[in-house]
Amino acid sequence: MLFFEDVELGRTQKFGAYEVTREEVIDFASKYDPQPFHLDDEAAAQTYFGRVSASGWHTSSMTMRMMVDNMANNAQASLGSPGVDEIRWLRPVYPGDTLRVELVTTDKRRSRSKPEMGSIFGTVTTFNQHDEPVMTLKTIGLIRCRDPRGDQG
Amino acid sequence: MLFFEDVELGRTQKFGAYEVTREEVIDFASKYDPQPFHLDDEAAAQTYFGRVSASGWHTSSMTMRMMVDNMANNAQASLGSPGVDEIRWLRPVYPGDTLRVELVTTDKRRSRSKPEMGSIFGTVTTFNQHDEPVMTLKTIGLIRCRDPRGDQG
Repeated sequence: MLFFEDVELGRTQKFGAYEVTREEVIDFASKYDPQPFHLDDEAAAQTYFGRVSASGWHTSSMTMRMMVDNMANNAQASLGSPGVDEIRWLRPVYPGDTLRVELVTTDKRRSRSKPEMGSIFGTVTTFNQHDEPVMTLKTIGLIRCRDPRGDQG
Repeated sequence: MLFFEDVELGRTQKFGAYEVTREEVIDFASKYDPQPFHLDDEAAAQTYFGRVSASGWHTSSMTMRMMVDNMANNAQASLGSPGVDEIRWLRPVYPGDTLRVELVTTDKRRSRSKPEMGSIFGTVTTFNQHDEPVMTLKTIGLIRCRDPRGDQG
């Protein structure tokens, strides 16, 4: 189990291979983002997107799945997240794309008020199969400390 | 159809009544955020969440659905979004909750390089049925201009 004290700054993790299907793109958009350009090729052809593309929220959610699978492979004492910063949807994600993630851990801070936990800050970039970045975002994760009475780790 | 020129700054829109079901919370988490505290009451009981709660990405996606429905009711010449800033998941969202949205339009800027479009900036707050904020985020939306050769709107 990986605790706050174990998190290395500056480390880059690369993981994931999420195959984006047309069925899933349209299912997600139907439920959560039913704008015509996410549902219908003809409507999309009249926009920047050109053809049906995934909702940015779907891209974010697929990225989260890859991050959770990566955490499960490197079990972390995760306590959830208070939010994320600066999501940028850089390029459309199309059915047939395969996504992967690069995650760089940029900072960590022990909580002053709750010394049994700390925050981990990271930058996430999601790429398509052409190694083009399709999304970036900045994550904040809460994680348990191994030693709840330890010094600033 | 609402164009860039029509968007009023400082206006607050209130809309939505999204009923959060246990089935949907677990379905979304199974696909996109399968951390134990989003799937299982016993695992959640050992965390801050107490019982099964929705993934923050699910809360974001449900909020997007309410925003799209609101746009459809007030048809906008929307061109998608380059991203969002400062998502904060403030409180857990539980099965049985009903969510609603308050959206304040804070700024608008016509594109210098593409005068046929502009950006609309807004602050979104999602509330539960107890009028407690469960999420805030800052949106950026692209929208078509009525007059593509018009002055700064």
